[in-house]
Amino acid sequence: MEDILKQVQDGSLSITEAKDKLATYENLGFAKVDHHRKKRQGFPEVVFGEGKTPEQIIAIIQALKAKNNAVLVTRITKEKAESVQVQFPEFNYHETAEILLWKKEIPEKDRVNSYIAIVCAGTSDLRVAEEAAITAEALGCPVKRFYDVGVAGIHRLFDNIEEIQQATVSVVVAGMEGALPSVVGGLVSHPVIAVPTSIGYGASFNGLSALLTMLNSCASGISVVNIDNGFGGAYNAALVHRLANKQQ
Amino acid sequence: MEDILKQVQDGSLSITEAKDKLATYENLGFAKVDHHRKKRQGFPEVVFGEGKTPEQIIAIIQALKAKNNAVLVTRITKEKAESVQVQFPEFNYHETAEILLWKKEIPEKDRVNSYIAIVCAGTSDLRVAEEAAITAEALGCPVKRFYDVGVAGIHRLFDNIEEIQQATVSVVVAGMEGALPSVVGGLVSHPVIAVPTSIGYGASFNGLSALLTMLNSCASGISVVNIDNGFGGAYNAALVHRLANKQQ
Amino acid sequence: MEDILKQVQDGSLSITEAKDKLATYENLGFAKVDHHRKKRQGFPEVVFGEGKTPEQIIAIIQALKAKNNAVLVTRITKEKAESVQVQFPEFNYHETAEILLWKKEIPEKDRVNSYIAIVCAGTSDLRVAEEAAITAEALGCPVKRFYDVGVAGIHRLFDNIEEIQQATVSVVVAGMEGALPSVVGGLVSHPVIAVPTSIGYGASFNGLSALLTMLNSCASGISVVNIDNGFGGAYNAALVHRLANKQQ
Amino acid sequence: MEDILKQVQDGSLSITEAKDKLATYENLGFAKVDHHRKKRQGFPEVVFGEGKTPEQIIAIIQALKAKNNAVLVTRITKEKAESVQVQFPEFNYHETAEILLWKKEIPEKDRVNSYIAIVCAGTSDLRVAEEAAITAEALGCPVKRFYDVGVAGIHRLFDNIEEIQQATVSVVVAGMEGALPSVVGGLVSHPVIAVPTSIGYGASFNGLSALLTMLNSCASGISVVNIDNGFGGAYNAALVHRLANKQQ
Amino acid sequence: MEDILKQVQDGSLSITEAKDKLATYENLGFAKVDHHRKKRQGFPEVVFGEGKTPEQIIAIIQALKAKNNAVLVTRITKEKAESVQVQFPEFNYHETAEILLWKKEIPEKDRVNSYIAIVCAGTSDLRVAEEAAITAEALGCPVKRFYDVGVAGIHRLFDNIEEIQQATVSVVVAGMEGALPSVVGGLVSHPVIAVPTSIGYGASFNGLSALLTMLNSCASGISVVNIDNGFGGAYNAALVHRLANKQQ
Amino acid sequence: MEDILKQVQDGSLSITEAKDKLATYENLGFAKVDHHRKKRQGFPEVVFGEGKTPEQIIAIIQALKAKNNAVLVTRITKEKAESVQVQFPEFNYHETAEILLWKKEIPEKDRVNSYIAIVCAGTSDLRVAEEAAITAEALGCPVKRFYDVGVAGIHRLFDNIEEIQQATVSVVVAGMEGALPSVVGGLVSHPVIAVPTSIGYGASFNGLSALLTMLNSCASGISVVNIDNGFGGAYNAALVHRLANKQQ
Amino acid sequence: MEDILKQVQDGSLSITEAKDKLATYENLGFAKVDHHRKKRQGFPEVVFGEGKTPEQIIAIIQALKAKNNAVLVTRITKEKAESVQVQFPEFNYHETAEILLWKKEIPEKDRVNSYIAIVCAGTSDLRVAEEAAITAEALGCPVKRFYDVGVAGIHRLFDNIEEIQQATVSVVVAGMEGALPSVVGGLVSHPVIAVPTSIGYGASFNGLSALLTMLNSCASGISVVNIDNGFGGAYNAALVHRLANKQQ
Amino acid sequence: MEDILKQVQDGSLSITEAKDKLATYENLGFAKVDHHRKKRQGFPEVVFGEGKTPEQIIAIIQALKAKNNAVLVTRITKEKAESVQVQFPEFNYHETAEILLWKKEIPEKDRVNSYIAIVCAGTSDLRVAEEAAITAEALGCPVKRFYDVGVAGIHRLFDNIEEIQQATVSVVVAGMEGALPSVVGGLVSHPVIAVPTSIGYGASFNGLSALLTMLNSCASGISVVNIDNGFGGAYNAALVHRLANKQQ
Repeated sequence: MEDILKQVQDGSLSITEAKDKLATYENLGFAKVDHHRKKRQGFPEVVFGEGKTPEQIIAIIQALKAKNNAVLVTRITKEKAESVQVQFPEFNYHETAEILLWKKEIPEKDRVNSYIAIVCAGTSDLRVAEEAAITAEALGCPVKRFYDVGVAGIHRLFDNIEEIQQATVSVVVAGMEGALPSVVGGLVSHPVIAVPTSIGYGASFNGLSALLTMLNSCASGISVVNIDNGFGGAYNAALVHRLANKQQ
Repeated sequence: MEDILKQVQDGSLSITEAKDKLATYENLGFAKVDHHRKKRQGFPEVVFGEGKTPEQIIAIIQALKAKNNAVLVTRITKEKAESVQVQFPEFNYHETAEILLWKKEIPEKDRVNSYIAIVCAGTSDLRVAEEAAITAEALGCPVKRFYDVGVAGIHRLFDNIEEIQQATVSVVVAGMEGALPSVVGGLVSHPVIAVPTSIGYGASFNGLSALLTMLNSCASGISVVNIDNGFGGAYNAALVHRLANKQQ
Repeated sequence: MEDILKQVQDGSLSITEAKDKLATYENLGFAKVDHHRKKRQGFPEVVFGEGKTPEQIIAIIQALKAKNNAVLVTRITKEKAESVQVQFPEFNYHETAEILLWKKEIPEKDRVNSYIAIVCAGTSDLRVAEEAAITAEALGCPVKRFYDVGVAGIHRLFDNIEEIQQATVSVVVAGMEGALPSVVGGLVSHPVIAVPTSIGYGASFNGLSALLTMLNSCASGISVVNIDNGFGGAYNAALVHRLANKQQ
Repeated sequence: MEDILKQVQDGSLSITEAKDKLATYENLGFAKVDHHRKKRQGFPEVVFGEGKTPEQIIAIIQALKAKNNAVLVTRITKEKAESVQVQFPEFNYHETAEILLWKKEIPEKDRVNSYIAIVCAGTSDLRVAEEAAITAEALGCPVKRFYDVGVAGIHRLFDNIEEIQQATVSVVVAGMEGALPSVVGGLVSHPVIAVPTSIGYGASFNGLSALLTMLNSCASGISVVNIDNGFGGAYNAALVHRLANKQQ
Repeated sequence: MEDILKQVQDGSLSITEAKDKLATYENLGFAKVDHHRKKRQGFPEVVFGEGKTPEQIIAIIQALKAKNNAVLVTRITKEKAESVQVQFPEFNYHETAEILLWKKEIPEKDRVNSYIAIVCAGTSDLRVAEEAAITAEALGCPVKRFYDVGVAGIHRLFDNIEEIQQATVSVVVAGMEGALPSVVGGLVSHPVIAVPTSIGYGASFNGLSALLTMLNSCASGISVVNIDNGFGGAYNAALVHRLANKQQ
Repeated sequence: MEDILKQVQDGSLSITEAKDKLATYENLGFAKVDHHRKKRQGFPEVVFGEGKTPEQIIAIIQALKAKNNAVLVTRITKEKAESVQVQFPEFNYHETAEILLWKKEIPEKDRVNSYIAIVCAGTSDLRVAEEAAITAEALGCPVKRFYDVGVAGIHRLFDNIEEIQQATVSVVVAGMEGALPSVVGGLVSHPVIAVPTSIGYGASFNGLSALLTMLNSCASGISVVNIDNGFGGAYNAALVHRLANKQQ
Repeated sequence: MEDILKQVQDGSLSITEAKDKLATYENLGFAKVDHHRKKRQGFPEVVFGEGKTPEQIIAIIQALKAKNNAVLVTRITKEKAESVQVQFPEFNYHETAEILLWKKEIPEKDRVNSYIAIVCAGTSDLRVAEEAAITAEALGCPVKRFYDVGVAGIHRLFDNIEEIQQATVSVVVAGMEGALPSVVGGLVSHPVIAVPTSIGYGASFNGLSALLTMLNSCASGISVVNIDNGFGGAYNAALVHRLANKQQ
Repeated sequence: MEDILKQVQDGSLSITEAKDKLATYENLGFAKVDHHRKKRQGFPEVVFGEGKTPEQIIAIIQALKAKNNAVLVTRITKEKAESVQVQFPEFNYHETAEILLWKKEIPEKDRVNSYIAIVCAGTSDLRVAEEAAITAEALGCPVKRFYDVGVAGIHRLFDNIEEIQQATVSVVVAGMEGALPSVVGGLVSHPVIAVPTSIGYGASFNGLSALLTMLNSCASGISVVNIDNGFGGAYNAALVHRLANKQQ
């Protein structure tokens, strides 16, 4: 601010120009927000597709695509996605994940060997697991999938545990009784993001049972996101993954 | 009934005697109940101690002891138990389980090699686990205890899994997230009775979280009793155990 | 392990062969799982049909049928079942139970006289009761059905109580207020598996009322499975039934 | 009103007097309330003792006793009751029911043969059952008690069912699973008032389980009052009982 | 029983006949049930139509109509009702109440002047209120309807309160906040049966709000039935009404 | 901002001074907060006493008293209040409301004739009602109290309704079934702030029942604050009252 | 009343006429209601469209339109609205708000500068926010909309906070976590009416999460209406707004 | 494994030795667990103090201290801590956090500049916030505290936001409405671990309200731990922090 004022004083800056700059500076109070937004750059803009028409989604994509390297549309049905793809044929639709994605290739030099483990209890949790996996990839993070490794047949988990242990962070997706994150959390030394799903019957109460299980886990190092929020699980994991790789 | 009526007809039975017999027969409608009570004999009479005064418990014991080989008082505090023991010094108090027990020695010939596994997740679930273990023993069933084998450090469970697998039936006690029965249920081929405990913090809601987890288990062969109901878990297990050993 | 090592030492086993064998042995740590799976043999493989396409179900059946004597598909609608039956005409569809089943005839010598009682409160609980009954039969257990014997007209139960008492184990299915297992549990001496159903109105909250009733039963010897989980109730009962008959 | 106006017109009523009368008449709009209060006469005044000091209770009793034949204080501890009895030694304290009562003798000619059945599942529900029984008696209704007849040993209920059937109305008190009103409701032809109690463990959730059971009863003719509300159950029953006896 | 036995003794009754009679007598243990069923005669048989096909309903009606003077089918849609009416054109369908009814005319001599008040808070509660009204009429009870008298415009209630006060018993139907039974209960001296409805928005939670309101009413003399259970409310009221009129 | 910059340009303001002013201006972004705080002046500072020691409360009062005309301490027990009064004898303690208050006399010229109505259903809700009344008075608003006017004896409300109608705004406090705000809301033309209390029994669930009732009110013009939040109800009412009187 | 009586006394009023007048006066007991209804005049009549047929809505509008200056139909779908518009083409349909409205122009002299702020967290809450905005306008209150200013990007709120602060009262609409009213409440000095919406996923439980958040707000000056009740929020705000402007 | 087998083959390893090594290797299946435990080294051993006696805690500390550089006892009251300190005077007790801690000094070279932000809404949440802060420090992470920055006075947060933004990860602790994590999450670019507290009144339901708010946050990058679980929040943050600093 002092610089600007000095320039005003010595006449090198008109009052109008100074006002603009200071206004910017004032906004800089909120430009911290922008700055931090900057720090999150490289991350694609995300559009939540549920409850939006194809026209609305197309309009939003047009606004975003100019300034971004990637656009991620979550919770979008196949029908809506196809309407959008007429306009943007370069977008790919991931059917299981219900995600529509466009992203520029990540340059070789920016790639890392470390990866996020997406661990999934049962085949019926796949939609949420794939939402997490595709989201993490869209956010620039390598991903390894470990699916159908639920606790009722725990040897399936043990066959994969070493690879899971070598991940930077795990996103563990489970419905029904939601016990998988507790078991994984006891076997790995990295953060575990638990995602309860609404898959279940009777007293699962649309994911409430799995949610409570995960919140009450007696294993340390587990935090939880909302029911079916594969996107949120992956977003958290990507923030962690970026921290772990920032010096490379 | 036909026999009785014939005896009336031929005069070998007086009307009064016939009425008695038929009344008995009528009562036999509920004597089925008694008969089944008979089948459960060998089982001790059970007194639920919570909310009863020492005097009431003493009175009940006096009524029961004449006709039974064993008396089991559950949910009884150390103080109450000591008051009762003044009257009945032959009763033993199990402090962790909060059980007061008197039983005749089971004759050598009635003993079996098979056993019930009492599996317990954490040290804070011990009261409920011991309530189950002492109850099962009081019901005449050999017991092996597997304590502190919760899923957050699953290798502890695996060190004991073979012995658990060889049991007739398992009672699996867990609080917090309640995931242990699911893991055990996937590893054994016998019935698993799951007992949720009220141990937990925050969103465990006094055992509701563990209860829901167990009801929603994706492993088959698990059934559930009420929160903290170690007695009920053992009672169910003992019924199964007796079935498995009845021909021996 | 010692044998293998000795064979390596004396050259009768190449290192490659020994690695294979030890790897197998290592896996044997989880082959306990397989071993126990073996103990459960005779039980059919179970496919949960809900949320799977006919194509997926057909693919799973093909994988399973080679190695099994029976295949049980639960929660499968009539339409899906008919699509599957085009491929596998030897499968029978049980419409009320929504079960598709194929099983080899149980040899005469393996049959037992004892049976599982499937007790059902009202006619609207029939789907769940039949799911239990067909499942138990598919698991090789004789079944007797006692339907429409709810507590609001309790004489209907009493007309059948002797036959229920002679069963090895009962599966008691009830919606609405879910009181039937308590009454049955007080009249029989064998284990009772209670299955709450989602049948009810208003404050039944999709089976929550019946579930709570059953968990809070003041009769001993009752354990509970998830809402509408007729399959789970029967599976537990079959485990008990097998234990009771294994020496015969 | 016309009469009053005519009297004003012909001068036989002054304006002031007419205003009083019409004001009374106006209040008569709420004097319906009073009138109906009159219809409920014979009923004692009721004081809810919980949360009131002995001094407050004494003050209220003094105000009430002048104009009433009976005063009923519910939910009053022994200590408080004794403080009140110093002032009013003619009051009797019912310890189990936690009720303090004073009532004039009902004249012989007003007594009826018919009675209210107070049916109670377990011994731990006694406080609520006695609150109901004493209340009903205080409201002038003969009472027969049927205690400890819960569904887990249903023959106890059947030994008493005929006498219960002959009652005018039943108040059925039950905690735990709360199944008793359904069974009674299926066996009697009179109205059943169900009172859930907070007695129970774990998932009884302080009477919620019993409450839901009763609301979902598949027997017709059952209505429900609040948890532990023995007073309310008896009050409803007394209203019904009075209707049934009003012509006598 | 003595008579039967004497007849056997003196030969006036064959053993076969005696067995029949005693069997009957035995059943008489449950014939109390029948006897009470008898006491409820005059009441129509009730068929719960929801979840039944027209064919099933027709079959049940055929079984019932022979032995009854009235048949009441509740919760039956217009479409189903029309299918049934093809077979039974003498049945009337009440569209708002969703009730299909056939009943013989009640003879003049059996009619009473007293009536049940059906009080209803809002126009959206009409289906439940009409279910109650038609049910009460089908059970032989005169009915007066007081609709749209909710507490938000309480003068509407006051315009009708005198007629409500003169009823034998009131059925008060309300959704939303469910406050009407409390207000009515404070103004009348007869029993009030409260029926919560599932009508409401947001935090009404499908009638839970109204249900809790009614259970917690600070007015005495109110009991509650299940959400939307207009039939149950009327059935309780009819039992009370019959008691009040039985001596006439 | 332009003025400041011009002064810098013409030298009448040093850079340091300009920085201060602009900093102030920047802070002015949040000085809106302060400004609005200003608008709320006249309102006393409020200290929530629960969970604070007398020492902490004394320290806070010392900090506040210098700059304020009134200090209001809510949820403070008698014992704590007495400790504080040793230090500040000019503070008055309102025992029922559990409020400790010090305020300067409101000058005659600032007084208004209009008032807030504090309406209260039952005597057990008095603590919350008085918390509201004392708070409103402390915030400078005249108050009229209408206590014990619950809906179970609705004539008590009608005797006072005209005075309630003439208030600027009503705070209606009710526990149990919480119906009073609906009735009041239908009778007045001003805003009603509803305060549910935790008073109740059984299924009142610590005020949840009253809260839901109020949220679901079918009367327009009612908004709700948290359970037992008499302070919050009065605070809202005072904001409204001030708006209504600001031109006077 | 005295006047009327005097006129009767002096013969200037016939008894019949006096009865009418006094009847009116009597009704005046409830005419307070009418009188207050009068005070609310200027407010349109409101019809809740959900669950009503177009025919019913048309009938109600016909009854209302004669005596009113405005009619507001809320929760009415486009299809229904179009059916109604055939009959009343002068009605305007607001599609986002699902409101059908007819109102006379407010005369210039009755307009005020002050306004209600409708603040809305996210674009998916728009339906509820527009219901509030259109309702407030229909009730004669100027409105300013501040949409999409949720707390996750709080600078959007700050860009508008000054204009929000200058409103008379704010209606703050938010779903998901429902945090916006707390933030706004801390920044403004006028009353805030919080409207939770059912927008959310997983553990939002149809608006329960947002509702609880708002009730528990640690900012003073916030009251809450039912989930999705944009109409109710605006109605409350309009009552406050009218109070604030009544002297102008 | 190949190496070991070769050594057996060439005789350089005896069979006994090889068995040991391979056994170790076998255990290595679970030694992964140990290995990962190793990776977590530097982290102190943690003892959950609640529900343990001082003697038990002393015994555990003795077992742990030999092999560790730090021991952290959480949820331990002052009394218990003092008993333990008699034995271990080198332990420090943190009274607000209820933590007892002993740790070796972290060497200068292992220290990092980056820090974890512990952000706390209100003063009543301090116990949980301090539990988080002390835990994080015990786990070797520098911490900066930002307390009493709740959303009701959001300028307090803004005064500190830049320092919060520069943290590696934030732990945000809030009770009442729990809105703070959403606001922080929208302003920072690093992961936010949200910790709901049980602080609140009425409808906060012991932290349920805050928990739901946090799970439903519309800001990305937020994950949640159990109610009052300050330890768990810090443990997760420390795992992230270590990842972010591991290359330094």
